[in-house]
Amino acid sequence: MNTSIFAPPECLLEAQKVRLAIREGYDRPTAGMANGLTQVNMISVPQDWAYDFLLYTQRNPQSCPVLDVIDAGQFQSRLIQDKQHDIRTDFPRYRIWEYGQCVDEVNDATSIWNNHPDMVTFLIGCSFSFESALLNAGIEVRHITDQRNVPMYLSNIPCTSAGRISGNMVVSMRPIPATQVSQAVQITAKMPRVHGAPVHIGDPKSLGITDLSKPDFGDSPRVLDGEIPVFWACGVTPQAAVMRSKVPFAISHAPGYMLITDVPDQAWML
Amino acid sequence: MNTSIFAPPECLLEAQKVRLAIREGYDRPTAGMANGLTQVNMISVPQDWAYDFLLYTQRNPQSCPVLDVIDAGQFQSRLIQDKQHDIRTDFPRYRIWEYGQCVDEVNDATSIWNNHPDMVTFLIGCSFSFESALLNAGIEVRHITDQRNVPMYLSNIPCTSAGRISGNMVVSMRPIPATQVSQAVQITAKMPRVHGAPVHIGDPKSLGITDLSKPDFGDSPRVLDGEIPVFWACGVTPQAAVMRSKVPFAISHAPGYMLITDVPDQAWML
Repeated sequence: MNTSIFAPPECLLEAQKVRLAIREGYDRPTAGMANGLTQVNMISVPQDWAYDFLLYTQRNPQSCPVLDVIDAGQFQSRLIQDKQHDIRTDFPRYRIWEYGQCVDEVNDATSIWNNHPDMVTFLIGCSFSFESALLNAGIEVRHITDQRNVPMYLSNIPCTSAGRISGNMVVSMRPIPATQVSQAVQITAKMPRVHGAPVHIGDPKSLGITDLSKPDFGDSPRVLDGEIPVFWACGVTPQAAVMRSKVPFAISHAPGYMLITDVPDQAWML
Repeated sequence: MNTSIFAPPECLLEAQKVRLAIREGYDRPTAGMANGLTQVNMISVPQDWAYDFLLYTQRNPQSCPVLDVIDAGQFQSRLIQDKQHDIRTDFPRYRIWEYGQCVDEVNDATSIWNNHPDMVTFLIGCSFSFESALLNAGIEVRHITDQRNVPMYLSNIPCTSAGRISGNMVVSMRPIPATQVSQAVQITAKMPRVHGAPVHIGDPKSLGITDLSKPDFGDSPRVLDGEIPVFWACGVTPQAAVMRSKVPFAISHAPGYMLITDVPDQAWML
């Protein structure tokens, strides 16, 4: 992608407004916010773990499509033109990880980054980027309708390990009417940098998911008769890797609480 | 890509035969060989440089699309099913680099890797992968017709730097009749993992290329009246980065002298 292609000025103002509201305390999932602009997942690991982690993303591009890597000591992304932004404050909520355990959730991670100056930060594509394309095609996105967080599940699909990093794929789920599943596949397949086509359609049990109503992350879904659960690779997969691999220290966003960038979702459409 | 999807057995036998011929001394550019199977570029750098290098590829995916990373001490690729293969012998020709200078060319790099056990190896997509698609569409690929190496040029397009690594993009050129340029763009755009759409069409001077007949790598092209020079990002770009960045030690393939894998070119078609 040519990152010099940002959204038009009126959209950038909206993105800036939303980032500012988040910085000032807005603490909710971001699905549906700043419609049409790319939202990103985040994982930040010590420099010593950065190579293993980057290799893990290279080997698992569907679940971990890296859109930007922010060097240690830097807190701005190539995906945002507005020079006021700061990745330490502009996600609504962060998770702090020690040896694979989530030890805290915070709304401002500035002091934590200050205490860990060697963190390398990965911004990873999010399936929210294809939701406006689904909506434009007349496909309802249930968690947006319900103003809830998308349901996410730790699947039994192993990712390819890299150095000290291993873990299973996390998937997001959207219930889609059977008549629209094919169209949903075609639309999302055109956006591989933001997870692309579904990894699984139907029976949750073959992904090791025993109860759809109890997601591992996000909110419980409302599934109607005639709807098929459709599963996409999810950018929370790095958090599952942090857990499994017992990375000594990491900072991530809280699932569904994303950073809004200045890049239009359309930039990822092939 | 799902690397469990290898080509059918009869194609794999052909790939194995070609790799064996190369190991036994075949020393020519590989364009057009083992038709329909993915050929790859290679760059191998010391472990200490691997993170910077992997980050460079992440930031420059059009010129450096990584198809596999081979850990230090390993000499086999996920892209090849045949367990007899060895990346130290199965490229026709290697270049040895010291502090950015090419100090030697060899046909067997086994002893060199033995003396440098900490090398991490990157296999990078090659534009040869879309040549069969061009041929199938009735678009002549001149260097295949002429049984010559593809012409490659060091352009003035800067890549995005990463840590200690920087450099300009290397481009390959194919002369295409004006009436077929649009079709060539459309076909190659569908294969972003093997360099995708052209980066430039027409006037070589705006890429800083003063004389098309004197490529920096490969053979001089034959361009006919009514043909437009069309330029694609090239997997020799990492060698330009090794030169510019004065990496203390590196092993690469010789431009155009590629490794034949067991993965069909079609695997990279969206």
